[in-house]
Amino acid sequence: MAELEFLFRPRSVAVIGASHNPEKIGYKILNNILSGGYQGKVYPVNPKGGEILGLKVYRRITEVPGPVDLAVIAVPAQIVPDVLEECGQKGVKAVAIISSGFKEVGNILLEQRIVEIAQRYGMRVLGPNIFGIAYLPANLNATFGPSKVRRGNIALISQSGALGIALMGWTQTAGLGLSAVVSVGNKADISDEDLIRFFAEDPNTDVIVIYMEGVHNGRAFMDAVRSCPKPVVVIKAGRSKRGAMAASSHTGSLAGSDLVYDGVFKQIGVIRARNYRDAFVVARALADLPMPKGDRTVIITNGGGIGVLATDAAEAEGINLYSGEDLKDFKAVMPPFGSYKNPIDITGGATVEQYVQALRMAEDKDTVDSIALLYCETAVCDPEELAEAIKREYKGKKPLVVAMVGGEKSARAVELLNEAGIPAYDAPEDAMRALSALHLWQRYRKKRRQGGEELR
Amino acid sequence: MAELEFLFRPRSVAVIGASHNPEKIGYKILNNILSGGYQGKVYPVNPKGGEILGLKVYRRITEVPGPVDLAVIAVPAQIVPDVLEECGQKGVKAVAIISSGFKEVGNILLEQRIVEIAQRYGMRVLGPNIFGIAYLPANLNATFGPSKVRRGNIALISQSGALGIALMGWTQTAGLGLSAVVSVGNKADISDEDLIRFFAEDPNTDVIVIYMEGVHNGRAFMDAVRSCPKPVVVIKAGRSKRGAMAASSHTGSLAGSDLVYDGVFKQIGVIRARNYRDAFVVARALADLPMPKGDRTVIITNGGGIGVLATDAAEAEGINLYSGEDLKDFKAVMPPFGSYKNPIDITGGATVEQYVQALRMAEDKDTVDSIALLYCETAVCDPEELAEAIKREYKGKKPLVVAMVGGEKSARAVELLNEAGIPAYDAPEDAMRALSALHLWQRYRKKRRQGGEELR
Repeated sequence: MAELEFLFRPRSVAVIGASHNPEKIGYKILNNILSGGYQGKVYPVNPKGGEILGLKVYRRITEVPGPVDLAVIAVPAQIVPDVLEECGQKGVKAVAIISSGFKEVGNILLEQRIVEIAQRYGMRVLGPNIFGIAYLPANLNATFGPSKVRRGNIALISQSGALGIALMGWTQTAGLGLSAVVSVGNKADISDEDLIRFFAEDPNTDVIVIYMEGVHNGRAFMDAVRSCPKPVVVIKAGRSKRGAMAASSHTGSLAGSDLVYDGVFKQIGVIRARNYRDAFVVARALADLPMPKGDRTVIITNGGGIGVLATDAAEAEGINLYSGEDLKDFKAVMPPFGSYKNPIDITGGATVEQYVQALRMAEDKDTVDSIALLYCETAVCDPEELAEAIKREYKGKKPLVVAMVGGEKSARAVELLNEAGIPAYDAPEDAMRALSALHLWQRYRKKRRQGGEELR
Repeated sequence: MAELEFLFRPRSVAVIGASHNPEKIGYKILNNILSGGYQGKVYPVNPKGGEILGLKVYRRITEVPGPVDLAVIAVPAQIVPDVLEECGQKGVKAVAIISSGFKEVGNILLEQRIVEIAQRYGMRVLGPNIFGIAYLPANLNATFGPSKVRRGNIALISQSGALGIALMGWTQTAGLGLSAVVSVGNKADISDEDLIRFFAEDPNTDVIVIYMEGVHNGRAFMDAVRSCPKPVVVIKAGRSKRGAMAASSHTGSLAGSDLVYDGVFKQIGVIRARNYRDAFVVARALADLPMPKGDRTVIITNGGGIGVLATDAAEAEGINLYSGEDLKDFKAVMPPFGSYKNPIDITGGATVEQYVQALRMAEDKDTVDSIALLYCETAVCDPEELAEAIKREYKGKKPLVVAMVGGEKSARAVELLNEAGIPAYDAPEDAMRALSALHLWQRYRKKRRQGGEELR
């Protein structure tokens, strides 16, 4: 998808409709581009001219001295066709049309017209009706969302504007790192499938998360997912009847039967998320962990209750809790009243050192494919010390997920682990869900390798 | 349940097995009692005598000068019978037996013996195998869990020790206020039903949350719940086959068929939580909100996407989204491209003032019984200002739940609202789940008033 290179890694960006008024979108986008540390040329464009944020303002894009790869357009909908014509004449490669007032309010013809103009000049169009695009590896934040975005390897594509912006902030506080945020809006030209193909080859992205209300071209979407070697996690909203109606009035999406979506997702190997929290529970693990060799999972815990909850979650998520005879080996790393039966309960008296021994044993055992380490905050095992020990000891050869329940120190320990790329959560259900998604993705990959058989 | 008064509001507490060693449970409990600000007399008891934390240590409980209402016992299991005899001679009213090494490790006879001794002297027994008891209205924290507990009106009963302690910390960071934390352990004497009866009459408790793996006396539990005028939220672990096995090895609970529990819970009007996070999502709303008059719910949102997600959740949770003609009135409080159809989408440009107008209208409308207010962080509507406005405007006559999605400011806004007793969450699903539990509880109450009919 070399043509999307200009969207993600433009050598220069023009902001058409750049504004002097800090309250306006045309100011915020320019400001985000500059404060994000973008290294290419930046050209504000506004008929009023003058200077914004220390940059000379050009009255029209055709007056800009150098070449322009990407034009971000934030002008009233009616003017967009004229602006696009000028962009075409200037030789712009890609445009991101922030402006709303197109298909989403019934102006279908106006939307068709802008696509036609863009195609005539060979320009790709993101939008219209979007909050912009951010690509962190290029230090590009051409959105009117938060100026700070946490860097990582998850690409977020959102059909919803407000939710997409909100999730830029939410991922930041949740300690989730993003490679890109793309607002697709009306998807007049650039579609989910175009973006999946780009991220499939993007070395900075390992997982793709999509919030969608509907797909325009089902066949193309299926093909793109099938040929993407990276996990695609989809939050498909409008699953209920009433929700589908709401989606239809929101983005004009024909949500379609949810059963159909569900069936197609399973067939092509999409990991379907229940909601955005779930999407990122899953994405965190998919982004950071090695693939398991098989599905035999062990749970290590210092609390019986949290172990029972995790076991319930494991069964609900279809996780195979290993129960081989060799689990007896774990007796060596627990007191006599511990339980080596999976969940491996090293008891409430477990110290950091005992956790480390149990973790080492689970990592070394050929019969164990995945590890869930659970912890209830106790006085004999400091959560932050435990997190540091896990970071130090974990060899990274098989998947490890962690759940830590407790007060502030446990919350900080969860952050420490996530920062180190070890998926950690504050509830055992999340840890089991993450492992289950990893195993699902592993099964999808296996089926694909076996030659495009139907996936269950 | 006047006899449990001595457990929750003792005029004096002895800690038998009080220790000089800060690493020991017998030190931590004493320290928590003192640092919690308990106003009654506190007597450390240890054969070694001396002084701990500035208090004179008595060699045996019979040497304590004044009367003792509650004895917290943290000595080896084998000595517990002798200690109990002395407690009985001293006239102690209730004992909390921290010590483990009883039924949970197969010592059934020893457990029977301590119950017999206690009954002979008319003492009630909490435990054994527990982390203690905290009752915030009496400034009593006789646990070896965290010393700080956030005060509120939710009573937490936990059959799991490690999980209960961890949840003491977790509720603190989650901004959830507790009236009491009770570790029930082996439930040799004091049972869930005894505690439900106490909290039913406790003016400081509005919701009871129970983590349980099994009930000993089903009939008594059912009677206690049925006659409790306050919502009882139960996390019943061991729902899966393998989870039930884990529960059995953890607390010796015969978990029983989960379908049976589920049926009984519905019959007697227990609100079943899916996990502890869910329990507190629900408890927060039950603890703070007025009861709805009917079930007609409106969603107010500034984001279409989050509105669709909430609509999906509403349908999944069985919430009745109102769709009457009079929703057209909301047109007055939104721009022309907004949607007055429920979800009421006041659009991404919505200001604090527009939210306030929409909230007022929903509060004033007789056709609206419950309100869910959703917010995606935007630049035109500051989340903390919105939270302050909601606090100021909300009349508290019908249930209101809030979901705010965004960065740090939104997270703080959620905290502000929760501190003010307006249940707020960071995901629309949580808000809808909370409302649904409120409506369920309303239906349970109605059925009970109609005279013990079977509940569906």
